[in-house]
Amino acid sequence: MTFEIKERDAAGRLCKFKTKHGTVTTPNLMPVINPNKMLITPQEMKKLFGTEIVITNSYIIKKDEKLKDIALKQGVHKLIDFDGPIMTDSGTFQSYVYGDIKIDPVDIVKFQREIGSDIGTILDVFGTPDQTKKEAENGLKETVARAKKSIPEKGDMSLACTVQGSVYPDLRQKCAKELSNMNADFFPIGGVVPLMENQRYADLVRCIISAKRGLNPSKPVHLFGAGHPLMFSLAVLLGCDFFDSSAYAKYAHDGRMIFLWGTESLETLNELPCCCPVCSKFTASDLKQLDKNERMRQLGLHNLYVSFSEIRTIRTAISDGWLWELVEQRASSNPYLLDALRELRKKENKIWLEKFEPTSKDTAMFYTGSHTIHRPIVFRYHKRLLTRYKQNFDTTVVLPEGNKPYSIYYADRIKKIFEKRKVNLVVNSHLGPVPIELDEMYPLAQSVFPKTTDNESEHESKKIVDEFLKKKKVVVWKNGKLDLKTDKSKQKNSVDMDLVRISAVSDMQFGKGVSKSLLSGDLRIVKSKNTGKIRNVYCDDNHVLSMRAEDGLFTLKAHGAKLLHKYFKKPKLRVVIEEDAIPFVKECKSVFAKFVVECDSELRPYDECLIVDKKDNLIAVGRTLLNREEMMAFDHGAAVKTREAV
Amino acid sequence: MTFEIKERDAAGRLCKFKTKHGTVTTPNLMPVINPNKMLITPQEMKKLFGTEIVITNSYIIKKDEKLKDIALKQGVHKLIDFDGPIMTDSGTFQSYVYGDIKIDPVDIVKFQREIGSDIGTILDVFGTPDQTKKEAENGLKETVARAKKSIPEKGDMSLACTVQGSVYPDLRQKCAKELSNMNADFFPIGGVVPLMENQRYADLVRCIISAKRGLNPSKPVHLFGAGHPLMFSLAVLLGCDFFDSSAYAKYAHDGRMIFLWGTESLETLNELPCCCPVCSKFTASDLKQLDKNERMRQLGLHNLYVSFSEIRTIRTAISDGWLWELVEQRASSNPYLLDALRELRKKENKIWLEKFEPTSKDTAMFYTGSHTIHRPIVFRYHKRLLTRYKQNFDTTVVLPEGNKPYSIYYADRIKKIFEKRKVNLVVNSHLGPVPIELDEMYPLAQSVFPKTTDNESEHESKKIVDEFLKKKKVVVWKNGKLDLKTDKSKQKNSVDMDLVRISAVSDMQFGKGVSKSLLSGDLRIVKSKNTGKIRNVYCDDNHVLSMRAEDGLFTLKAHGAKLLHKYFKKPKLRVVIEEDAIPFVKECKSVFAKFVVECDSELRPYDECLIVDKKDNLIAVGRTLLNREEMMAFDHGAAVKTREAV
Repeated sequence: MTFEIKERDAAGRLCKFKTKHGTVTTPNLMPVINPNKMLITPQEMKKLFGTEIVITNSYIIKKDEKLKDIALKQGVHKLIDFDGPIMTDSGTFQSYVYGDIKIDPVDIVKFQREIGSDIGTILDVFGTPDQTKKEAENGLKETVARAKKSIPEKGDMSLACTVQGSVYPDLRQKCAKELSNMNADFFPIGGVVPLMENQRYADLVRCIISAKRGLNPSKPVHLFGAGHPLMFSLAVLLGCDFFDSSAYAKYAHDGRMIFLWGTESLETLNELPCCCPVCSKFTASDLKQLDKNERMRQLGLHNLYVSFSEIRTIRTAISDGWLWELVEQRASSNPYLLDALRELRKKENKIWLEKFEPTSKDTAMFYTGSHTIHRPIVFRYHKRLLTRYKQNFDTTVVLPEGNKPYSIYYADRIKKIFEKRKVNLVVNSHLGPVPIELDEMYPLAQSVFPKTTDNESEHESKKIVDEFLKKKKVVVWKNGKLDLKTDKSKQKNSVDMDLVRISAVSDMQFGKGVSKSLLSGDLRIVKSKNTGKIRNVYCDDNHVLSMRAEDGLFTLKAHGAKLLHKYFKKPKLRVVIEEDAIPFVKECKSVFAKFVVECDSELRPYDECLIVDKKDNLIAVGRTLLNREEMMAFDHGAAVKTREAV
Repeated sequence: MTFEIKERDAAGRLCKFKTKHGTVTTPNLMPVINPNKMLITPQEMKKLFGTEIVITNSYIIKKDEKLKDIALKQGVHKLIDFDGPIMTDSGTFQSYVYGDIKIDPVDIVKFQREIGSDIGTILDVFGTPDQTKKEAENGLKETVARAKKSIPEKGDMSLACTVQGSVYPDLRQKCAKELSNMNADFFPIGGVVPLMENQRYADLVRCIISAKRGLNPSKPVHLFGAGHPLMFSLAVLLGCDFFDSSAYAKYAHDGRMIFLWGTESLETLNELPCCCPVCSKFTASDLKQLDKNERMRQLGLHNLYVSFSEIRTIRTAISDGWLWELVEQRASSNPYLLDALRELRKKENKIWLEKFEPTSKDTAMFYTGSHTIHRPIVFRYHKRLLTRYKQNFDTTVVLPEGNKPYSIYYADRIKKIFEKRKVNLVVNSHLGPVPIELDEMYPLAQSVFPKTTDNESEHESKKIVDEFLKKKKVVVWKNGKLDLKTDKSKQKNSVDMDLVRISAVSDMQFGKGVSKSLLSGDLRIVKSKNTGKIRNVYCDDNHVLSMRAEDGLFTLKAHGAKLLHKYFKKPKLRVVIEEDAIPFVKECKSVFAKFVVECDSELRPYDECLIVDKKDNLIAVGRTLLNREEMMAFDHGAAVKTREAV
């Protein structure tokens, strides 16, 4: 089994998960197959929904002599007639629902191995949300003990060790850590079904985040029992990779249809508010008139069409960088999901999320409502602005929000102002203060807001504006008037905006004061003939930086890397690699995660980085694909895309 | 042609539109059929999407000798092979796009009649958004003049007279009024394509509302050229009934796919984020590999699957009362739609929208974000609370937001408080102040909010709380403490909550002080044995009121109606009907709109009302289905559901 990140957004990731029975793309949904009663067969699922992996229950198989016999003789793949990867559950949930049932924790793992399960599951102890902390802790201890006993029995089967700990974040994290320290392959987050049944999504988020904090980030995470697509995107945003659905069948059995905003009873619908093949073929009244079994089957198909389509939508959102938008939109249909989203604003959660947040995305950031301003990318921008950015002049002129990029929209005003005196120019934007020279940097130019946002967003951005302008001499441009004294000193008033921009962007991107090192020489700036935008920066005829047109961020060139390497002591900006990898990196091949020895904890996905050997010799410059935690944990896949050897 | 309202929500309506070629349910989408080049035939559309009506272009037919010949000889239905209703366009848009082309305004109307169009369109003058007011006014005059000349030529064809007026609300309203005064059958809102192309949705909303204000509410309204489902729900919320889409074909031609959040190029998609039959059958790479024509066709099918599914979703939202939720959710995916939504907060728009807002709905009100608190139902509640509600005691105790219904959640506290003294009890809720006795009234109990909303919603509700409590003696229950003096007078402290509830709800529902009239006698209150909720109210042994469990509102009984009829002078609560209708109403049959002579302008859809004759004799009591404007305008369908003859 291998698992590697291919694309990412927020703390979500699109991965390839390789098993003996084929490769699965995550995030993905494992439909639950009841070997006794298949509403839809795995073969059909594969054909209709592109189902890549399913889950079935080893406890149910084991307790039925006939099923057990077939499974042992022919394997679970033959039993349910599916040639893709199969995960098996152990009976934990049945213990929870039906009370004490007889299963031996080690036997059931052995059994799963014997029937050829690709991913077997330990018999963990289901921790309910109403447990006292003591009870939860006891359950957790037993779960960990069982995991310990089970691991030696797994053979070549991957073993899923379920994170328990009820609603206690410290227990969840502890359990996750202890399981991560063993040789487990796959981490379900368990005991969450009662939370989902009661729409306690804020509690669910706490469980997921605390588990994720303790888990080895290089292993797949499965939100056990999560089958309603309503919250798939939120769970993925937090780093869940797998869901399993028996909901499609359970709801179908009750005449209920899954939609992205919730569940509706067919009986109450006059029309089918969906475009899936079932809802396109039948009208509501057609469906109502079908015989009971056929209706159940069609509702099951509908439920899976909708669920798999949401999985594809989420994967598209990850690839294209709009996972936050998707999650906020989905949450707008359910107030309890909005409560969950609010959980992410907590400082410790923002700090955790920010570590995974890519530096740049393929699509613009879209405002969806009062949650947008609290996204990690905004949090990061504000933090860097306050700690890395340096004002150039003593006076600051504040301009109102305008069209983007501001430097073009306000070109005439800027000229007039600079004729009077040199000042800092700051736009009071929806995203907080934007010094005019940062206006092309992601996400400042690449963001779409309504003309008026909402009180909360205005309040948040004002807070940062106030902090940013604190103790500064500020002049506000208002209604076309500007109360600014003309500078009568002999100093020339023209400001070299290109230089100001290059300095400011490189400081924001690489660290405070870095421009001093990168740009201390004869500068030559090459601009695009078409757009007038900065393209390349040369210092003493050495190419140090290139600016990407799409996100206004610099890529670091070999000479720039040398300067930064000299300027910053380790570990700053460094990815330290094994000796063995150096020849490949020198040929501009990617740095694979397994060759990473250390990494600057401040590096974020898609940041520019210095690739060095253990003695801190600069080998190459590249762009990270993972953050430090991930680089240290993953055994598979690329960690850094090498751009240029030095 | 007849048109009648069947269900409603916001200013949106679900109607039956009868034509010579069959009945169409609205809101609906008319796919544009190019008679020269059909990507998908009308027959296929009918089969695949349940398409009920299509639109084609009479100008294109007329200028092509062959098409013209067939159309004149065999009719337009044979020409495009569709037996349902067909609307024809006149060439206005072609004039706009290609400049002056030769069409005679009257000839083209005659031609449409001759080819058997169900709905022909006048050759209006396309008013672009960049016109000066003078230009727009001239265009409008010419449009109205052409309508005047065209109407005598329409024969038995329905004639669509397009509302123009560029972006000037007064011109739009004027044009709408003038056209409404003629014998027009169908009202397109024209000249809006450039607004939609540039996502100027706030301007679009202004155009729609001002047109709707001037239009006869009993006629279908068509948003001309609106083909992207992104804004269907918003347009329906404002009272648009028809859309027409050539977008499905145009986008398909450009390799673009329509989604509810916008449009994506197939080329950029790795996966298909949709569950329609096309996206379920093909993968993105399958689609990319199809030959050009087949790919175009499949994209066209996808675009229509998504568009028609949104139409069904909107109709479901109307039937079930969640159109506002749907619109707010859709808007969360597009900042310009959020700007448009903000337009609806303007006082004059709120006032207009409130007139159409049903008194009660089948589903709870869901908070989606900072726009929710600005909905007309909340506006109405605040207005009635400030003008109709009467406080009972001198001191008010304010309780924090709690579980619903508050009177049960706070039962213990209430008891303790009343042991001390008689006070008004008000919950400081997400919806503003809620006197405890109103807690079961729609939408106060029937609303779902997150634990914490957002600054803006909090600010809005605080504003109303402050206004409501202004100049009152207020005690706040905080952290379990209550600084309330015990009443030492001999007055008994127990409060008859049932009486307080009945009085307050009837005042809120029927008007200030009405409880004095309804409840001045020996009261007997019958409660549900199961729920303890008030069911029936008798006064001097006469049944005056019943309370509906689902929305906590009263239905008025015959005796209650008599009391209100005596208490309130006309026109208050009255629907005045023609002599001819009286015998039917006495048999408890619905009042049809065409028999309504007058109506209280304060009555809202689903309000209790007094049905009277022209001499103000009380005939019956009923529940309105329409507001005054609609009752006066509609010739078809029911206006009042009669409950009980008097």
